Amino acid sequence: MPESDPLYEGRNGDGSGNETRAALMEATYKALSEYGYADLTVERIGEEFEKSVSLIYHHYDGKDALLVDFLDTMLDRLEADIALDEHENAHVHLRALFDRVLSPSLDDERYAMISAITELRGQAPHDETYREQFTRSDRLLHDRIAEIVRRGIDQGVFRDVDPDRTAEMLLVTINGAMTERVTTTNEATVRAVRHELDEYVRLRLLDDEHS
Amino acid sequence: MPESDPLYEGRNGDGSGNETRAALMEATYKALSEYGYADLTVERIGEEFEKSVSLIYHHYDGKDALLVDFLDTMLDRLEADIALDEHENAHVHLRALFDRVLSPSLDDERYAMISAITELRGQAPHDETYREQFTRSDRLLHDRIAEIVRRGIDQGVFRDVDPDRTAEMLLVTINGAMTERVTTTNEATVRAVRHELDEYVRLRLLDDEHS
Repeated sequence: MPESDPLYEGRNGDGSGNETRAALMEATYKALSEYGYADLTVERIGEEFEKSVSLIYHHYDGKDALLVDFLDTMLDRLEADIALDEHENAHVHLRALFDRVLSPSLDDERYAMISAITELRGQAPHDETYREQFTRSDRLLHDRIAEIVRRGIDQGVFRDVDPDRTAEMLLVTINGAMTERVTTTNEATVRAVRHELDEYVRLRLLDDEHS
Repeated sequence: MPESDPLYEGRNGDGSGNETRAALMEATYKALSEYGYADLTVERIGEEFEKSVSLIYHHYDGKDALLVDFLDTMLDRLEADIALDEHENAHVHLRALFDRVLSPSLDDERYAMISAITELRGQAPHDETYREQFTRSDRLLHDRIAEIVRRGIDQGVFRDVDPDRTAEMLLVTINGAMTERVTTTNEATVRAVRHELDEYVRLRLLDDEHS
């Protein structure tokens, strides 16, 4: 987006651009939750947005361009869930990550966020733009998790495993559990997966001294 | 569907009804791969189908009713992947299951099948019918895997773990890896997950004598 864009102006200044953008993202999220991807239109997003629909069209070519930007916002939030603290014990960090992404209960906002990501992921098999977006974001999450594992090895807390392989296993299992949660009514999933992931970490990663 | 339904008649007789239905499922699958869920219409499915569009409307209320039936067909195929053989060693059976669902290469048909399931799963967060369908099918896959684990315990091959918890972990990880495969271009996922799942099974399930 151009820097002179009125929707985003003041982004690093008085914050009004940020607020407008946040309101648009909120509107997108509400409309997506209500209608689902297939029945979503820019007009319907506009109904949830206090400003004009033409302002949306001024910034985005259409629904998909807006949704790709929206997905970026959602993924930034997800990434914030695994923010790094270099000095923390890697095992403690990993458990804190599990606590957040696999918490037994899910507030409405987080449920809606995971639902939205799952719906947009459903576009990726036949839409290259979404596929690129998920490739990029999953790589980023992968790299963050691999960094935690690598740090654990350096700290002498974890065994000398392959950090990339371990990270991919954790990422895919977490993604699978989050998807299961919003696409089924199976209640036991998250608790079961959390328990087994803890066991996987204990048996596969923890050094004998620490397990 | 009523038994007198011309699309399905002869289903258990001369097989012609089965063939017509298979052709319609094939057409649905091609159209879904080409257009994706959002741009899919009964008319577009009809273009891939040698018989008339009105025949489709005679049997289904619309796109979603047809897709729910289509999803049933896809899930039957997936279920066939983990067919039980009571006399087989449970560890051998589990590895054979991994070989099939996490094979390093994926033929076009299987890729299209997993893509279709992923796309339809993307409808589930805001559509109760799809959510019920995935709840049912994931429970069924869960039960099949739990049965293998239970058999392994009876055979003395596996430790006395909780079969349901283990099955949920395996199901969610496999689903997550299959989704990753069709929604990103990350090449390393399947091999990494396969390796770590084998390690999880070895460390968590295999009796000391067998590991």
